[in-house]
Amino acid sequence: MAKHLPHGTHTPVLIIGAGPAGLTLSHLLHQAGVDSIVVERRSRADVESTIRAGILEPATLELMRRTGVGERVDAEGIPERGIEISVNNQRTRIDLEGLTGKTAAIYPQHEYVKDFIARRLADGGTLLFEHTVTAVEGEVVSVETSSGEHLSIRADHVVAADGSASPWRAQVAGLRARHEYPYAWFGLMVEAPPTHRELIYATHPEGFALISKRSDTLQRYYLQCSPEDSPEDWSEDRIWEQLHRRADSEGITVSEGRITERAVLRFRSAVTEPMQRGNLYLAGDAAHTVPPTGAKGLNLAVADVQVLAPGLVRAVQTGERDLLDKYTELALPHVWRAQQFSWWMSSLLHAAEGESPFSARRRVAQLHSVLESEAGRRFLAEQYVGTRAQEV
Amino acid sequence: MAKHLPHGTHTPVLIIGAGPAGLTLSHLLHQAGVDSIVVERRSRADVESTIRAGILEPATLELMRRTGVGERVDAEGIPERGIEISVNNQRTRIDLEGLTGKTAAIYPQHEYVKDFIARRLADGGTLLFEHTVTAVEGEVVSVETSSGEHLSIRADHVVAADGSASPWRAQVAGLRARHEYPYAWFGLMVEAPPTHRELIYATHPEGFALISKRSDTLQRYYLQCSPEDSPEDWSEDRIWEQLHRRADSEGITVSEGRITERAVLRFRSAVTEPMQRGNLYLAGDAAHTVPPTGAKGLNLAVADVQVLAPGLVRAVQTGERDLLDKYTELALPHVWRAQQFSWWMSSLLHAAEGESPFSARRRVAQLHSVLESEAGRRFLAEQYVGTRAQEV
Repeated sequence: MAKHLPHGTHTPVLIIGAGPAGLTLSHLLHQAGVDSIVVERRSRADVESTIRAGILEPATLELMRRTGVGERVDAEGIPERGIEISVNNQRTRIDLEGLTGKTAAIYPQHEYVKDFIARRLADGGTLLFEHTVTAVEGEVVSVETSSGEHLSIRADHVVAADGSASPWRAQVAGLRARHEYPYAWFGLMVEAPPTHRELIYATHPEGFALISKRSDTLQRYYLQCSPEDSPEDWSEDRIWEQLHRRADSEGITVSEGRITERAVLRFRSAVTEPMQRGNLYLAGDAAHTVPPTGAKGLNLAVADVQVLAPGLVRAVQTGERDLLDKYTELALPHVWRAQQFSWWMSSLLHAAEGESPFSARRRVAQLHSVLESEAGRRFLAEQYVGTRAQEV
Repeated sequence: MAKHLPHGTHTPVLIIGAGPAGLTLSHLLHQAGVDSIVVERRSRADVESTIRAGILEPATLELMRRTGVGERVDAEGIPERGIEISVNNQRTRIDLEGLTGKTAAIYPQHEYVKDFIARRLADGGTLLFEHTVTAVEGEVVSVETSSGEHLSIRADHVVAADGSASPWRAQVAGLRARHEYPYAWFGLMVEAPPTHRELIYATHPEGFALISKRSDTLQRYYLQCSPEDSPEDWSEDRIWEQLHRRADSEGITVSEGRITERAVLRFRSAVTEPMQRGNLYLAGDAAHTVPPTGAKGLNLAVADVQVLAPGLVRAVQTGERDLLDKYTELALPHVWRAQQFSWWMSSLLHAAEGESPFSARRRVAQLHSVLESEAGRRFLAEQYVGTRAQEV
């Protein structure tokens, strides 16, 4: 798998990072006949077991199916036909399928990653795990193996798809538009039967809660908390008391069980402009960060590489950079759309600490406006399932 | 008109203020067979010439028609079938009529007031202009005439409908939820032909502009300005330069002419809870203030009295207070809905001073989300024309 590359190897495209952006890009390039090398700092086992929420938009599912990676998600993904929004313990269902004609799927990110790793390897792709890129200088990429060996790879194009801490972003420079949210999520994995067959997004004066289903025996719950909280601030009693208080509603009681994981997730938005400079491109979290509400992160990474791949293919195969040079311009509209929706969903559902009486009541009035109008529900549903075209 | 009342006069309902709320209430009570006295500090001429924007929601128009005050608005009001939203000089039309099946009407507030004054007087109503209420103590209302005469009126119910500076609000106490906006409007009346047949709400990095039509020869324009600005800060050159820069778009150039009025309008939201205590009730601006975006103020005042009138009629005619005691509870949902919409329209369209790059781009992304989706346009249109029931 981690092939031994001769010093001075050349590749048309070197991709830093074997997450959803990097792997999807490598796969799309391969399908179009363009070679690439993926360099990933962590081990394959690590990458395949990092748990992240995963809601796959219809356009992401469509890409998987059309490019031959859709078999397992279609068998094991949980179709998401609707979601419940609970306002002060009163539920309203958003009929995603009825309102948009589309369904998303709940499929954890590491399963997505596993599918693409397996497929890239089956296709003879070069994935260098436990290899760290130490420098990108023009066409020369310096790489260090876990055993301390140094190698240098020449690449016509370098794509940084190595997540929000990407050190390569600075080389693209430009504007970094940021937003910090006055809340965070306390995420829990719980061994319990499902609370409900669909996701419940609950807002309550004491804070937000999200009840999601991982399997018939494993559930993923989130509680709004302060960005300064650590898991130790939450006793078992407080967790269950708050989950029930925020998310129970008529006929639905949050199911309890042994808590196997506890972690605080920060809420941040950030967008880098431009997303390219010279032969260096940013994709996915390396370029932008979205808060977890609405689960746009993976889909946004896929949307990026759906724009970047054709530009790279054209540049590699014909030498024409016209499409590639428009990468930022073509990608930014969907990036800002995802940021906007993530911000909107977050703002609608979270009681910010120190929220004024005006803001608190206005926020609930906006939720009622959205939920009580068919147009409002459809406007929300369209953005939830994603508005990008399904063509690959 | 200003009848000479004997000292110790009794009325079932005394209404403070001859604005849209007070006059509409007095008219609705009369139609149901309940007498009232309206006490107004200003002169009739003053009241009838105070210029305020006026967009009448379908439910307001319907009330006027059903209660016999709709003749002039139907003849002279300008039907509002659509509005234009211009984002960085690119227009999108919101087809209000097509999206909601309803049309609003542009009809200045002082014309509405004139119609109701004329009708109240024709119906023999008691409207005391140039009379100031100096105290409300239980059932006893002290009134001072412009000539310094004092009289006292006994009233079973007292409705304060005397605008946002109402001194009687303090007697109802409770919560006053407020919001200040970091911008204001510089309003202009201009002798010029219409710029366009429909309203143009324009947003631009330099600020918001609203182009509205008053008549074939008189136009009402607004420019976003700082709350600290005074009309002297704006030269004629700067006014026209900014109107063109913000609101011109393909095929549309803001029409110029002599500026006959200049005034800065503050942006504030405020909601009082409860809206009643004992026999004292607040209606319209006395209870709540909305910013001018979306022109909800008059409609909200009318919505209040549509809820208050049946409660008062029932209490006066049967002695049962059950409906009257629910006034606050029944009125607050539409109050918050109007606040929410006014806040949303304002936030979408104004470039707040010191807006972060993230907020500026997110805001424009939200505008695009709304304008490019049929559901988004309909969600906006529904709220713009008003969601309250058309039944009186």
